Parts: sequence; C-alpha cells; structure tokens
Amino acid sequence: MAYRETPMVTQRKLAQKSGLLHAAESLVREGGFAALTIQAVASQAGVGVGTVYRYFRNKDELSTEVFRRATIREVEAVKAALQLDGSVAVRLAAAAETFAQRAFGAPKLAWALIAEPVDPAVDHARLQYRRTYSALFEAVIAEGVESGVLQEQIPSLSAAALVGAMAESLLGPLDHPSCNEVTTAALRDFCLRAVGVIDNS
Amino acid sequence: MAYRETPMVTQRKLAQKSGLLHAAESLVREGGFAALTIQAVASQAGVGVGTVYRYFRNKDELSTEVFRRATIREVEAVKAALQLDGSVAVRLAAAAETFAQRAFGAPKLAWALIAEPVDPAVDHARLQYRRTYSALFEAVIAEGVESGVLQEQIPSLSAAALVGAMAESLLGPLDHPSCNEVTTAALRDFCLRAVGVIDNS
Repeated sequence: MAYRETPMVTQRKLAQKSGLLHAAESLVREGGFAALTIQAVASQAGVGVGTVYRYFRNKDELSTEVFRRATIREVEAVKAALQLDGSVAVRLAAAAETFAQRAFGAPKLAWALIAEPVDPAVDHARLQYRRTYSALFEAVIAEGVESGVLQEQIPSLSAAALVGAMAESLLGPLDHPSCNEVTTAALRDFCLRAVGVIDNS
Repeated sequence: MAYRETPMVTQRKLAQKSGLLHAAESLVREGGFAALTIQAVASQAGVGVGTVYRYFRNKDELSTEVFRRATIREVEAVKAALQLDGSVAVRLAAAAETFAQRAFGAPKLAWALIAEPVDPAVDHARLQYRRTYSALFEAVIAEGVESGVLQEQIPSLSAAALVGAMAESLLGPLDHPSCNEVTTAALRDFCLRAVGVIDNS
C-alpha cells in the first residue's frame, strides 16, 4: 500500500512551502532575483537548506515559482482595473495607472519581474505572462474599436504594444521613485494616445 | 621580450573570428540561440571545436557577441531612418517601419534578438541596447515636442515606451510572416498616435 499523507501533514507542508515562498519573495523585494539563493531563503525562513530543497529542486525552480506568484497578483490587479465600471478609455487609463503605481510601490520587485537578467526558465514565464496581459488589453481594445470609441487598429497588436510600452517605460523611472506620479500620468497619457481614444466621455 | 604577432597573423585571426561569427549568426537565423552551440559553429565553419574555443571562452560569450553584432546592425538601420530628411512624424514612421520590415526579413533572428529566453549575459546586452534605441527615439521626440509638432510628453518615457511597444508587438506576428505589411503599417500608426502627432505635414 502506498504511503498516504494525513490531511494534517499535507496542511503542514503547504504552510511550510508558502512560508518559504514568502521568505523568497521578501529577498527579491530587497535585492532582485540576484539576492535569491537557497541558502538565503533558508536563513530568512529560519530552516535548514535541506528543508528548502524538499520543496524546490533548485534555485531556478524557486525563482520561477516566486516570479509566477508575484506576477499573478499583478495580472489580477490590472484585470480588476480593466473590469471597472466606466468607458473603455477610463478602464485603460486605470489599468496603466494601476500597473505603474504598483510597480512604484515595490520598485525592486517590479524591476526583477519585468527585466532583471535571470535564468531562461523565468524568461519563459515572462513571455507567457506578457501574453496573459496582452489578452486582457486586447479584449478591451477590441470592445473600444467595435463601439467606435477607439480608432481602427489591430487589437492584438495594440495590446501587445501597450504591454511592451508599460514594461519598458518604467525601467528607468523605477530607479527614481520620486518621479512616481509624473511618470504614472505620462504613461497613462501615452497609452490613451496610442490606442486612439476618439470619445473620452 | 614578449611575443608579438606579425600583422599577417593578426589579420588571419580577425578573419577567422569573423568567419566563426558569421557561421554562428547563420545558426541563430535558422534556429535561434537554442541552435547555437560550439560544436554546431565548428561544423558550420568547417573547423574543430578547439578552434572555436580559441576565440570564445564558452557558448555564452559567443552568443553575446552574435547578439551584439546583429543588434548593432539593427540599431544603425533605425538610426538612419531617424536621420532621414523629413518631419519628425515622417522620421518616426520610417524608424518604426524599418524596425518591423527588417524583423520580418529575418523573423527567427528578430525573435532571438528580442525575446528568446537565453543566458543572463545576453539579457544584460538586451537591456543595454534597448537604452541605445531609446536614446535615439528620445532625441527625435524631444525635437518634436520643442517644435510643437508633437503633444507635450516626457520624451525619455515615450521613447522607452515606443521601444518596448515595437519589440513586444512583433513577437506574435513574427510567427506569421504573411502579415508583414499589415503589421508594419499598424505598428507605425500605433507609434505615431502614441507620440501625439499634431502636425503631420
């Protein structure tokens, strides 16, 4: 008969894994993925390195999991902004502002998620989540084109372009968090111009 | 007395290194950086692997050098478009079209340069060249804002946003080279809207 974990053991393992991921993310928030090592996570979580290896085969697997969890949170925040009540322009503006404001709220983490040179496994996850962001914007842009409040365009292309624009344009400003509000407004305006808002009412 | 190469030896080495880089780039054009191995370059160039290692310490160094050489060519083409005679809008349009057309001309290479998950060393070079592109666009956008043909904006932010938009928006279409012309026009229009062209004359 195969060994079966009791529910309590399963529960305890989930809690421990979650604690390790929490510790790992706090390291990335401080020093990017460069600061994320199995040893550092073990210290931060107050466990031995063996315990960390029980949950993650290596640093790349841990990095990818931290990346995914943090990115899913960001995607959900942008998605919520795109689903607000309001015109297409209002929702696109809210999404751009949300993306920028959240990035400025945790600049090192944002930089790590967007652009820090890391293992190809994280790069793969980046490409995947960029497509997820794109699909969210595409739906709203398509709605705007159909209803005549945005100029004619290819919604999938504009959506990907917005995602690229939002990510790339913050890399410099994230080093200067004092530019927070001005940058956020400038990025929002860039995005609204780019999708050709005809009727902002 | 230190050993000094004769001019002829230096010349021969430069030619051999150049030949290896040419072979390496042709591999990337076919199969991205994933297809680039020391062994494959040696075969392609008709030399032994030892010869390749005489010029490149490892695959990452070779990849980075291939990346740099190919990207410098792309940067120069975009720079030439931005320096054409014509209005700010005409030059920005030409730069976006040039970027897209050249990408469609070598789609696998473009994808490899823009987004293929690779070693962090290449990622570092990517970040560096994105800043180079940005600086070129920033100068032209600043000129447009100053002369009143573009809306008020932060030229550095808009420039980085354009660079991100151009790169990200092509990733999907590069898989479908038949969309070449439509995509190029759509990207150009996105860029012109994004920088708020007031006077296109």
